Amino acid sequence: MDNRQIVLKRRPVAVPVLDDFDLVRTDLPQPQPGEILIRLAYLGLEPAARPRMNANSPYSNPIEIGGVIPSTGVGVVVSSRSTRHRPGDHVFVHSGWQRYCLVREDDARGIDTRLAQLPKWLSLLGLSSFTAYIGMTELARPLPGETVVVSAASGATGAIAGQIAKIMGARAVGIAGGAEKCRYAEKLGFDACVDYRQQDFGARLEAACPNGIDVDYENVGGEILRTVFQRMNRRGRVILCGLVAEYNSLESFPPGPNLWRAVYNALRIEGFLASRYYDRIPEFIERALHWSSESRLRHYEHIVRGLENAPAAFLDLLAGRHLGKVMVELGPP
Amino acid sequence: MDNRQIVLKRRPVAVPVLDDFDLVRTDLPQPQPGEILIRLAYLGLEPAARPRMNANSPYSNPIEIGGVIPSTGVGVVVSSRSTRHRPGDHVFVHSGWQRYCLVREDDARGIDTRLAQLPKWLSLLGLSSFTAYIGMTELARPLPGETVVVSAASGATGAIAGQIAKIMGARAVGIAGGAEKCRYAEKLGFDACVDYRQQDFGARLEAACPNGIDVDYENVGGEILRTVFQRMNRRGRVILCGLVAEYNSLESFPPGPNLWRAVYNALRIEGFLASRYYDRIPEFIERALHWSSESRLRHYEHIVRGLENAPAAFLDLLAGRHLGKVMVELGPP
Repeated sequence: MDNRQIVLKRRPVAVPVLDDFDLVRTDLPQPQPGEILIRLAYLGLEPAARPRMNANSPYSNPIEIGGVIPSTGVGVVVSSRSTRHRPGDHVFVHSGWQRYCLVREDDARGIDTRLAQLPKWLSLLGLSSFTAYIGMTELARPLPGETVVVSAASGATGAIAGQIAKIMGARAVGIAGGAEKCRYAEKLGFDACVDYRQQDFGARLEAACPNGIDVDYENVGGEILRTVFQRMNRRGRVILCGLVAEYNSLESFPPGPNLWRAVYNALRIEGFLASRYYDRIPEFIERALHWSSESRLRHYEHIVRGLENAPAAFLDLLAGRHLGKVMVELGPP
Repeated sequence: MDNRQIVLKRRPVAVPVLDDFDLVRTDLPQPQPGEILIRLAYLGLEPAARPRMNANSPYSNPIEIGGVIPSTGVGVVVSSRSTRHRPGDHVFVHSGWQRYCLVREDDARGIDTRLAQLPKWLSLLGLSSFTAYIGMTELARPLPGETVVVSAASGATGAIAGQIAKIMGARAVGIAGGAEKCRYAEKLGFDACVDYRQQDFGARLEAACPNGIDVDYENVGGEILRTVFQRMNRRGRVILCGLVAEYNSLESFPPGPNLWRAVYNALRIEGFLASRYYDRIPEFIERALHWSSESRLRHYEHIVRGLENAPAAFLDLLAGRHLGKVMVELGPP
C-alpha cells in the first residue's frame, strides 16, 4: 500500500497554475514510538498556503520544492504506537494534501463524531471558524450596536466572523464579490452585504454603515482595505486576519491605507495568527456547537471529491469562486 | 492695550513658507463670567499644527483663514471672572500663537512654579512629554530587555519617549537626522542612535538592534517607518504618535509598510491622541518630577524670543532643525 500526495513542483509566479503542483506516490510510512498513522477522510483548504509557496514566505517556513502543500484534515487512526490515539479513533491534524499522514501523538486532536459529523470538524468547528472566533471575541471585541465590517464575507472565516459579531450584538456588514455571495451572507444573518465589484462600492458601503465603521475584520486587503479604512470611526479596530488580495504579490506592497487616519482616530491595527490561541479550542467548540444548535451559527461546505482535484479547488478558492469552507473528500483508498 | 496674534494668511501648499502667516493686532478681549484672560509668557510649538492648516485637516477642525495657529502656552492670569483662577496665578493653556488668550476656567490648568520653573511646564512637563509618557506606559508597554526604537529621537516627544523606555528597563535605540542629534540622544541615555541620512541606514539600524525590534515609537512615518517595520519582532507594537514626514503631503499616502508583516508577526499598530488621557496628567507630572530629580529624565529647551519669530521657528521645527522642545518666549508686553 502506498500514499498519495500533492506536492509543490515549482514556485508559482504571481497567480498559481495547475502545473505548479504534482501528484506523487510515496511509500506509506510506519509509526515510530509516540507516532500515529492517519487515513485522511477530508482535507480543509486554506488560502494561507499560498504565501508559503514563495521562497521568501512570511509565514514560518516556506514549502520546499517537492514538499506537501499544507492544510488541515480529519481522518481515522489506522496504526498507532501511542497510548493516546488508538486505531479507529477520529482525529484532527494539520495534515497536508495527502491520503495518509504520520504525526506525533501531540500533533493530533481527538474528535467526537457523536457531537458533529466528520466534515463539520473541518468547517463549522475547524481552523477557519476558530480563527474568526478568536479574532472577533479576543481582538475586535465589538460592543452591542457597533458596526462590524467583514471582507470575504462568504468565505470560511468571514461568514463565521459576521455571525459571531451578530451574536455579540453588533451590526454586521459584509463585503463580497458578486450578488450570489452577498445574498448568501445576508441569508446567514449579516445585516447587509455590499458587492465590491459594483462601481459605486464606496458609496454603497457608506450607505450600509450610516454610523461609520467600528471594526474591520479584514480578510482581503488591497483596495478593499483602503476603502473601509477611510470610514473607520474613532477608537476603531482593524483586525488583519488575512490579505488574500495580496497573496500573489508579496514582494511589493500596493499603496496602503492612509495611516493618518490611524493617528487621528486612535485606531488599533492588529495582525494575528490563530495558533497563539490553540488552548482555547475546547471553549470555541463548546460555544460553536451551542450556537449551531440554536441556528445562530451556520456554515456552508463546498466539498470537492478526490485528492487529484485539490489544486484546482485551491485555485478556485484563491480566486474567490466558492462559498463557505472548501474541502476535499478523499473517499476509500 | 491690544493683543498680537499670528494667524493663517493662506493654506500652505506642501511645505509652509513665512508668507503663509500674518502678524495681526486685535483688541484685547474682556473676560465674561467663568472666563479668564492670560498674558502668555512662553508658547510651545507642536508639529501637529501643520496638518490643521489644510482644508481637509484630519485632526478635529482645520484652522480657518485668519485663525490663530494652535499651540500650548504658559502664562499669568491678568483678569479673571472665575473663582478658580485669580490674577497672578500661573496656568497652562492651549493658547495659540498670541500674547494674550481668553479661555473658560475649565480650559486652564493651574501650575505651581515652586515645583518647576515656568518654561519647564511646557517642555519637561508639557504636552509633548505627556504624549511620550502615555504612548510608552499605556500603549507600547515595553518589557525589561525588549528593544524600543524611537524616531525623531532628538525631538520634544522622542527624547522623552526613549528615556522612559530606559526607565522601564528596555533597550532604547533612537533614529535622528545627523550626527549632532544622534550624539544628543545618546547623551540623554539612548543605548544607540542611528542617523537615517547615512546610506546604509537599514544595516546600521539592524546592527543597533541585534535582537530585532519589539516596539516602534513612531514620530516620522514614510521611509523611516518602512525600514523599521521590516525588522519588527513577533508580537511587536507600532505606536503611531506622529507622522511628520507626511505632514506636508496628506493627500496621497506614500507606499506604506508591508502589512503582511503585521499578520504573520501578530503586530499591533495603534494610533493615539494624548487628549484621551488628560485625566492622567497629575500622575505624569508627579513621576516626571521624580525622575527629573534623579536625572533619569532630561530635556533640552530651544527657546526663540518674540512672537514675530514663531513662524520661522515652526518651519525649522517641521524641517527638523532643532533639538528638544521648541518654545517662544514672549517677554514683557
